[in-house]
Amino acid sequence: MALTVVGSIAFDAVRTPFGERDRMLGGSAVHFALAASFFTEVNVVGPVGDEFGEAELEVLRSHGIETADVERIEGGETFFWRGHYDADLNVAHTDETRLGVFAEFDPKPTDRSRGAETLFLANIQPDLQRRVRALCEGARLAALDSMNLWIETERDSLRTAIAEVGCVILNDAELRMLTGEPNLLRAARAVMEMGPGIVVAKRGEYGSALFTPGAAYALPGFLLEDVRDPTGAGDSFAGGFLGYLDGCGAHRPDDATLHRAMAYGTVLASFNVEEFGTERIARLKVEEINERYAELRALTHFDAPG
Amino acid sequence: MALTVVGSIAFDAVRTPFGERDRMLGGSAVHFALAASFFTEVNVVGPVGDEFGEAELEVLRSHGIETADVERIEGGETFFWRGHYDADLNVAHTDETRLGVFAEFDPKPTDRSRGAETLFLANIQPDLQRRVRALCEGARLAALDSMNLWIETERDSLRTAIAEVGCVILNDAELRMLTGEPNLLRAARAVMEMGPGIVVAKRGEYGSALFTPGAAYALPGFLLEDVRDPTGAGDSFAGGFLGYLDGCGAHRPDDATLHRAMAYGTVLASFNVEEFGTERIARLKVEEINERYAELRALTHFDAPG
Repeated sequence: MALTVVGSIAFDAVRTPFGERDRMLGGSAVHFALAASFFTEVNVVGPVGDEFGEAELEVLRSHGIETADVERIEGGETFFWRGHYDADLNVAHTDETRLGVFAEFDPKPTDRSRGAETLFLANIQPDLQRRVRALCEGARLAALDSMNLWIETERDSLRTAIAEVGCVILNDAELRMLTGEPNLLRAARAVMEMGPGIVVAKRGEYGSALFTPGAAYALPGFLLEDVRDPTGAGDSFAGGFLGYLDGCGAHRPDDATLHRAMAYGTVLASFNVEEFGTERIARLKVEEINERYAELRALTHFDAPG
Repeated sequence: MALTVVGSIAFDAVRTPFGERDRMLGGSAVHFALAASFFTEVNVVGPVGDEFGEAELEVLRSHGIETADVERIEGGETFFWRGHYDADLNVAHTDETRLGVFAEFDPKPTDRSRGAETLFLANIQPDLQRRVRALCEGARLAALDSMNLWIETERDSLRTAIAEVGCVILNDAELRMLTGEPNLLRAARAVMEMGPGIVVAKRGEYGSALFTPGAAYALPGFLLEDVRDPTGAGDSFAGGFLGYLDGCGAHRPDDATLHRAMAYGTVLASFNVEEFGTERIARLKVEEINERYAELRALTHFDAPG
């Protein structure tokens, strides 16, 4: 099994009440790929600039991630995001975004990336998501993320992109904005009417919810004593979720498999936020994932009436 | 087993995007008592005015709730709250509060109320909570709720009241405000250092979390298609939670019992919000509670790794 992700490969500058970093490896494709790499083979598709070095690539490669489609653009600048968080770590404040090489990105994925059974279209311009979707003919399960910017400025393109995937992964506020429906269950149904059979609502520290035509499901976030930087948590969640599904060959997953995938997504997101950027997940061990998965079961389990 | 609750018995005027009511039965003690009445014997302690009639008392009595300590004050006016909710039903906007008979309330509970094994001090002035706590000598498990007003204006009294109970049930924002600690787990620990061994964080539509000295626990809210009026959800949660504990004689509950109690609290809160005020819970059946408890288990259950 294999999974391809297209999205930003970035340098991030982040400040939170617990510290700051001037320039660290980030980007949605990076956070996603690292999380998914614990479960399956991952191909990353995206552009970087001249100054993106071997050290950054090595973080990916050391996790077995295929970087043949990390395209270095001569004279270009890597995508850059600067942001900060105040005491409420659920709210990211963007201070600066420089698209750099992403502004003119023309994806030309290798056959290997195009043949992967699972595809994640991280948060990029919806028409670009559609082009990659069309190129990746091997994908049996395709999912996309998006953001408020595209919901406001590219709503029609985004709706078309959504109709071409089987799974949508958005923040709950984005689901509400996209559909104009304040109720989450109704918002998820409205997205399903656009095409996808799986809708995931990310809810920050509160966890996540999942909707399929027949059922609804929800998990709280893992309760942590130390949360230092939430950047990339949503992409780590998606990486754990889709990585698990691809790793067990679930391209038309049943509900029980989706629920386990949600738990793995929750676990990966919880590690992500413990330290800055990719620092925690870069040194994560499979045994730690399995241990926290069991802890999450204990954290949410209750018995039938005694 | 028996449970005593002291708190507001009120008339509420509520407007939400789904309708409005000019004057309906409400108040923290009422919502709590109705929810708890499905699990155990309940005594309500609180004052009402002249205009509080037999029809309102009958809603309580028809659920087997003892109203001997619902004290009618001649010439007085029943506590009145007017508020509204916009599209974000997690945020209540208070438009008017008239304390009425509550301003001068001097509780004189009967021996029956004082002898109950479980006591809930709903959100009232902390010194009043302390007086009732001292009077109810039979209580082996005492819990309290509070609000931002008392945290701001009566912090020392509130901290003393907290030291005299075994369980605190607050919104997560209130826990953070009370302790000055943005992290929920750390905020809960700070409350435990004041005395209580059980801390419950209510998180609105996102569910709830529970902390004991050795463990943390969390449940999402029940996902509902129709949420019409969240007023009283927190008190219905507390009523299901403490009512269940008292009903099974758990006055020093172990973690597994607390987790089932959280699930019952979640279930009762979910029914509460489906209609205005007490309308839904007033006609609720035990079988519906049991059915939704099973649904909540399915909604949150995931398997060990396959």
